[in-house]
Amino acid sequence: MMSVRIALAGIGKIAGDQHVPSIAASPDWELAATVSRHGRIDGVEAFTDIERLLACRPDIEVVSLCMPPAPRFEYAAAALRAGRHVMLEKPPGATLAECVALEALAREKGVSLYATWHSREAAQVEKAGAWLRDKRLVSATIIWKEDVRRWHPGQDWIWRAGGLGVFDPGVNALSILTAILPEPVHLKAATLEVPENRETPIAASLDFAHPGGAEVTAVFDWRQQGDQTWTIDVETDAGRMRLADGGATLTIDGRKQADADGDGNALQGEYPRLYARMAKLVRSGGMDMDLSPMIHVADAFLLGRRVTVEPFDE
Amino acid sequence: MMSVRIALAGIGKIAGDQHVPSIAASPDWELAATVSRHGRIDGVEAFTDIERLLACRPDIEVVSLCMPPAPRFEYAAAALRAGRHVMLEKPPGATLAECVALEALAREKGVSLYATWHSREAAQVEKAGAWLRDKRLVSATIIWKEDVRRWHPGQDWIWRAGGLGVFDPGVNALSILTAILPEPVHLKAATLEVPENRETPIAASLDFAHPGGAEVTAVFDWRQQGDQTWTIDVETDAGRMRLADGGATLTIDGRKQADADGDGNALQGEYPRLYARMAKLVRSGGMDMDLSPMIHVADAFLLGRRVTVEPFDE
Repeated sequence: MMSVRIALAGIGKIAGDQHVPSIAASPDWELAATVSRHGRIDGVEAFTDIERLLACRPDIEVVSLCMPPAPRFEYAAAALRAGRHVMLEKPPGATLAECVALEALAREKGVSLYATWHSREAAQVEKAGAWLRDKRLVSATIIWKEDVRRWHPGQDWIWRAGGLGVFDPGVNALSILTAILPEPVHLKAATLEVPENRETPIAASLDFAHPGGAEVTAVFDWRQQGDQTWTIDVETDAGRMRLADGGATLTIDGRKQADADGDGNALQGEYPRLYARMAKLVRSGGMDMDLSPMIHVADAFLLGRRVTVEPFDE
Repeated sequence: MMSVRIALAGIGKIAGDQHVPSIAASPDWELAATVSRHGRIDGVEAFTDIERLLACRPDIEVVSLCMPPAPRFEYAAAALRAGRHVMLEKPPGATLAECVALEALAREKGVSLYATWHSREAAQVEKAGAWLRDKRLVSATIIWKEDVRRWHPGQDWIWRAGGLGVFDPGVNALSILTAILPEPVHLKAATLEVPENRETPIAASLDFAHPGGAEVTAVFDWRQQGDQTWTIDVETDAGRMRLADGGATLTIDGRKQADADGDGNALQGEYPRLYARMAKLVRSGGMDMDLSPMIHVADAFLLGRRVTVEPFDE
């Protein structure tokens, strides 16, 4: 299989940590260019303007976008208009309306568009969903507590209106929840704790309605020091399940599940799996724009009660 | 044509002002029952529980819901599960996720579901959209200023988290905007003014991105005394248009357009047109769940900057 030329736009922390090594390790892809105001990758042609890239490099079929959500739409729309396939870091945009517009544009142009949710590719998420499929849900409890200073140092945009705050990691939990629950849930109530000196929440609690009456709740907190917690506990009519470490570890009725998939292969990491999925979508002409995790976030802002909490300084 | 039996759930201000007279005036419908904790209509069988209604009156094919959005989902889901067609007052729910879930349920059951947007049925909205269709947009300016004391007396739920605040009328403007603009827009920035003693905004300003670079803005304000303003001003490369009085009056290049439709008939009111459309959907097995106005509202809460303003007391 020939590798496909891909450009990476937005060369910041997540690009260096995840996207570049995942692309480099895959036979599917050749990293052919970058677009970024400041960042660049040694040995890769660097552009500072998406329109220049699209004009100069018609051989690049795919553009992967990993800048913050606010500027992402313009890059995505430009690439789609130029007939390129597009892959979006999560969340897929700053608004739901722009995601809907991008999907319409991609359909019009007949190209692939992929709203990635990296946590859905964590090692044990698929197995957790398979286990849940034939069971009656009693409760699902999300605890997602991490130290913002450790994971988002100096990222001011997450604290400004539109930056999502603690929903930036929280949407990862929601992307897993929406992938593993057989039935759709919707928010009944939410509380958002916003530091006095910031515009976005540092913590949130969510209470969902479930069609079978199960208790489905989530607590997100960015003030966690020491051990970090990314856990979903599920109780059913036929046993309990704990998906921990952000989806990497699965315990069913107290028994930790093996770390290998059904074929006995070692599991890939989240980002390599995203890029493998994008390669499949491009080959098949497919589209994957599941907005359900982001819809829950927008719903939380829409109906959440805001509480002001003490100032947060990095 | 036989009339279809319909039940009306949520007998409050909007039911009495609009739904009951619209149903009564139409040969399409027979108001066969109501569901409400407190309200009732003289001469119509009254239930206080939706499940009782559905069990006792299998002859009622359609349920129209006009209670506040928070409790609406349970009623809608119960009616759909019982195989009834459902009509939803705007906004169609308290969350986007529940609207998506209702649509899936209606498809599963093979029944009609209609998210109504009454302002789209204002007399001149269709003509405004037709005029705009072949023109290049330069700007669209929404001014929606009304006196909350006059239009929502004693309606405490609009001030509690989830109640939408000034977006309750604002979504009417957005329902017109999304109906008449040929291209989709999405929010770039928003400011929400929230009274110190309330949870929802009393005023908002919105700034949209338009694919052709037009300036699209909206100002909503609930503190307007005296004259009320519900106006959309549009400038194009081929003239100007003003849609005023919430869509009832259309002026193109300074000339007020006639108040009659193409057939010379006097135009129906908004709610009679909604019920006529629902009758068509039921006959054809159709669905109309355009969530775009509500998506813009959720986007405004998602990325809007909140500003605290002086307390509001009724």
